[in-house]
Amino acid sequence: MTTPLRLGIAGLGTVGLGVVGIVRKQADLLARRTGRDIRITAVSARDATKDRGVNLGGYAWEADPVDLAQRDDVDIFIEVMGGIDGAAKDATEAALRAGKDVVTANKAMLAIHGQALAEQAEAAGRCIKFEAAVAGGIPVIKALSEGLAANEITRVMGVINGTCNYILTRMESAGLPYEAIFREAADLGYLETDPMLDVGGIDAGHKLALLAAIAFGTRPDFDGIELEGIDRIEIEDIRQAADMGYRIKLLGVAQRTGRGLEQRMQPCLVPISSPLGQLEGGTNMIVIEGDAVEQIVLRGPGAGAGPTASAVMGDVCDLARGFRMPTFGQPAASLENAPAARAVLPAPYYLRMALLDKPGALAKIATILGASGVSIDRMRQYGHSEPAAPVLIVTHKTTRAALDEAISAMQATDVLVSPPVALRIENL
Amino acid sequence: MTTPLRLGIAGLGTVGLGVVGIVRKQADLLARRTGRDIRITAVSARDATKDRGVNLGGYAWEADPVDLAQRDDVDIFIEVMGGIDGAAKDATEAALRAGKDVVTANKAMLAIHGQALAEQAEAAGRCIKFEAAVAGGIPVIKALSEGLAANEITRVMGVINGTCNYILTRMESAGLPYEAIFREAADLGYLETDPMLDVGGIDAGHKLALLAAIAFGTRPDFDGIELEGIDRIEIEDIRQAADMGYRIKLLGVAQRTGRGLEQRMQPCLVPISSPLGQLEGGTNMIVIEGDAVEQIVLRGPGAGAGPTASAVMGDVCDLARGFRMPTFGQPAASLENAPAARAVLPAPYYLRMALLDKPGALAKIATILGASGVSIDRMRQYGHSEPAAPVLIVTHKTTRAALDEAISAMQATDVLVSPPVALRIENL
Repeated sequence: MTTPLRLGIAGLGTVGLGVVGIVRKQADLLARRTGRDIRITAVSARDATKDRGVNLGGYAWEADPVDLAQRDDVDIFIEVMGGIDGAAKDATEAALRAGKDVVTANKAMLAIHGQALAEQAEAAGRCIKFEAAVAGGIPVIKALSEGLAANEITRVMGVINGTCNYILTRMESAGLPYEAIFREAADLGYLETDPMLDVGGIDAGHKLALLAAIAFGTRPDFDGIELEGIDRIEIEDIRQAADMGYRIKLLGVAQRTGRGLEQRMQPCLVPISSPLGQLEGGTNMIVIEGDAVEQIVLRGPGAGAGPTASAVMGDVCDLARGFRMPTFGQPAASLENAPAARAVLPAPYYLRMALLDKPGALAKIATILGASGVSIDRMRQYGHSEPAAPVLIVTHKTTRAALDEAISAMQATDVLVSPPVALRIENL
Repeated sequence: MTTPLRLGIAGLGTVGLGVVGIVRKQADLLARRTGRDIRITAVSARDATKDRGVNLGGYAWEADPVDLAQRDDVDIFIEVMGGIDGAAKDATEAALRAGKDVVTANKAMLAIHGQALAEQAEAAGRCIKFEAAVAGGIPVIKALSEGLAANEITRVMGVINGTCNYILTRMESAGLPYEAIFREAADLGYLETDPMLDVGGIDAGHKLALLAAIAFGTRPDFDGIELEGIDRIEIEDIRQAADMGYRIKLLGVAQRTGRGLEQRMQPCLVPISSPLGQLEGGTNMIVIEGDAVEQIVLRGPGAGAGPTASAVMGDVCDLARGFRMPTFGQPAASLENAPAARAVLPAPYYLRMALLDKPGALAKIATILGASGVSIDRMRQYGHSEPAAPVLIVTHKTTRAALDEAISAMQATDVLVSPPVALRIENL
């Protein structure tokens, strides 16, 4: 047995306490598997007096995570505070400057500052590892950057926000509108403090940016993501999708196109019978396609103390075993600055709108679609009691540009009650 | 860029040529991701004159893989010949003696000789890596030994023989008997030269032994597996299972019990709606359960040139990056010699038998089950024209021992036409 490997944990919320739990419970197992005695020496959190149900008396306590990050008795700085900037970033930078490796669960910080932090880590000869930042307990960063390292990755897709998948699944099973299930999720504590991080697709977008960077050797580019939340999905959309053999999922897709890197995080219709269509509740799923491996699907819990701490400690085990590599799987300087390509590849779309019930309204819409080169596969108009008539259209394959042109033209007419909802159909 | 990393490939079948293809096609990508120039220096195969559709003229040729394994210009010996003993083992041992790391796809060799080879590798300070030996392109060895290293693994399950899953899936979809689909699989080249390796569950058993060793820190113990093939499954079983909401899968399960390590590879009934029940054709799936991570499911192609070569080259990338660890994830000397526990945990069973159509036959069977403590959940006797009456029984949870006792007693009666078929029901 060599010298102990000493952890400093910044953040004692769910994940931080999960890490404490594993280090204590599995000391022997970790030593047998890594050859190192892994122990916690110091911790940091906002409130030192709060009862967390665990005796933390054996660890040094730092009020400031930056101080924790620079302690001589810390080898690995574990950042599980969260936040794009502020203390998390300051402490991460301080840790790298002080010659510590960093393990973080912070997708937001890395999606925005990943390139700069990766450069800093490499200049310092240190590692940043972030398995816990994407898809909780699923070892997807490892699969992509190591297991499939010999593949040219052609596409990465995933349902990587458990809260959104919970809401969409519950809307379908309970037959209740978005607002009701949103409140339910809030009551259950499933939502971030700013719920738009979840239902606006931002959290999932952060994760997608990290997956794309590794998959395609590009700089993390959160701003390049076509981002759309689930907050405009109505129960009617879910019913109609089901009726056509689809489920609505907040689906992330990243792929290289002739015009650059396409990254989308948006609600899509996927076949009910597909693995993604079958995914229920808070579970996450990632589909990775590579030129040699064909298709790999990974599924597991996307959040929670145990799964997330499992991922944090998996990174710690890697470092304990001496596995060291650049943050995004290749030197930061070699990451390409790929242009963002928005929805270049054509797809069929699902369109829902409410038309004023007056003669020629539907004809106007159909004419506009035709003029934009969008051809209609199926159309339904429903019986109704209100002045607005619900209309559903499924298009043949079209570009998002053509569809957006049509939608703009529709909005310039006097027949729409509200802006149409357009959802891409992914026939996986 | 440091010195080149030089590969010697023994075996130029599907997998070997797949490896050649990746090294040639992805030279730049591999260099960018690993920081090493990875190249092939020498190869070996039985027939040097055969046209393999690839120009291998740039590589040194060795008639004997043992000679290849010892060449000064080889850093990593890639063993993709196969076979438990003989040339594969001789060459692997020679490579370790000569100070080479070994990457192999040989599940049979490792399931039988894994402990000795792991000890030899560690004594020589070398690595044996074998991602390609289990579940083709799915990076499951990496997930289990690295990504989930901080978990106490509680259970590993999997459908890890694509040929068996193809046969069972096709029997159901085509409604054809085992013999017909077996011939179809043979014609398609899906079967090993000795088909019992596939349909007898032996190949899948080899893989399970490797998964269990990593998961539980035990010596690979192929002989400890309760092994049963799919060759006694009739189309009637598949129909009956479907009628009850189940599919029949050749399912591997490994778990620790109070009495030792339980390893089973046998046809089981799993719920149609479960991920394993949904798995069709040659695809593989592994379910890993750990105390922290809960449940992870991995799915992908279990065979084929691309996926298997992807796994081989993933191991090569690890070695190129300097990731080194003991063969089964912890020092070979620390692997436990756990006793084999056979079907200790009770489960419901599906029983099919053909009874002679005479008064009291069914009563005899029911009495025997009761006397062995096996209680009946459901029973069906079918109308029939033959002298034998088909009878199906689903039991409540029982031990395999109690069931075997009952089956022995049944066979001692004069009412059975042939030995009953008993399949475990796994309600995942």
